Amino acid sequence: MTDRIQISQNDIDSVLMWSLIRAARRAGHIMTEALEGHSLNPVQFGVLAQLAAGGTMTQAELARATLVRPQSMAPLLQGMEDMGLIRRSPLRERGRPNPVELTSVGDKRVHEAWQSALDTNDLGQAGIAPTSSQSLNSLLLQIVNSI
Amino acid sequence: MTDRIQISQNDIDSVLMWSLIRAARRAGHIMTEALEGHSLNPVQFGVLAQLAAGGTMTQAELARATLVRPQSMAPLLQGMEDMGLIRRSPLRERGRPNPVELTSVGDKRVHEAWQSALDTNDLGQAGIAPTSSQSLNSLLLQIVNSI
Repeated sequence: MTDRIQISQNDIDSVLMWSLIRAARRAGHIMTEALEGHSLNPVQFGVLAQLAAGGTMTQAELARATLVRPQSMAPLLQGMEDMGLIRRSPLRERGRPNPVELTSVGDKRVHEAWQSALDTNDLGQAGIAPTSSQSLNSLLLQIVNSI
Repeated sequence: MTDRIQISQNDIDSVLMWSLIRAARRAGHIMTEALEGHSLNPVQFGVLAQLAAGGTMTQAELARATLVRPQSMAPLLQGMEDMGLIRRSPLRERGRPNPVELTSVGDKRVHEAWQSALDTNDLGQAGIAPTSSQSLNSLLLQIVNSI
């Protein structure tokens, strides 16, 4: 495309990565609303779920699993520790922050919130049928797991 | 799911909105890298593209089109104005920030960056064929345009 060609909305909508970034902002709103009653935001939910699945994890492992930037993990985890959802494990690698694990409060919270998170899979309002939602999820997971 | 049931990675991967949020972080990295040579980040690219398609737009219109939070638009646009990519239009609604439009520098930049952005549509590395990428994009646009 040269600078003589007019960019249209269709052109913008053809940039898949930009569609993905925009759709994720909607996903953030939808999930934020669904989890509000459990006083969790989507990333906190993701961290709790990951710890519920993985047991004790280091900051680096959690960053990889949630795709949160490593430098954002420390303040995120500190906030969750202050909320009583996670605690630092006594296991420690020299020069590294202690790994984290769920508290019983965090474990209870993620299980309580689970159904609310899962309910957001229903994209009927966006005109997306359950089978299409499943295809969508599979493609997204291919991107998530691609590197 | 009660708190007696163990959450697995498969359970986490079944939460579509969380897959979408995680995949968008990958998309952000991919697009950031692709646009780096043009000194644009993905959101700046999106704003420029939107202005190229829509002409003069208000902050509120741009926020809706890019799904950026309205309160984040002012600093974002200020940065882009400082970079010489956009300018405030003389048209003004009372009590509102002036609408914005592309400068010739911004117009040139978005056209130069276009092919790099479009190249990121190739998800062959993630094992996603072009027809599947198109289905993925359609589903994402349904979510983007659903509210």
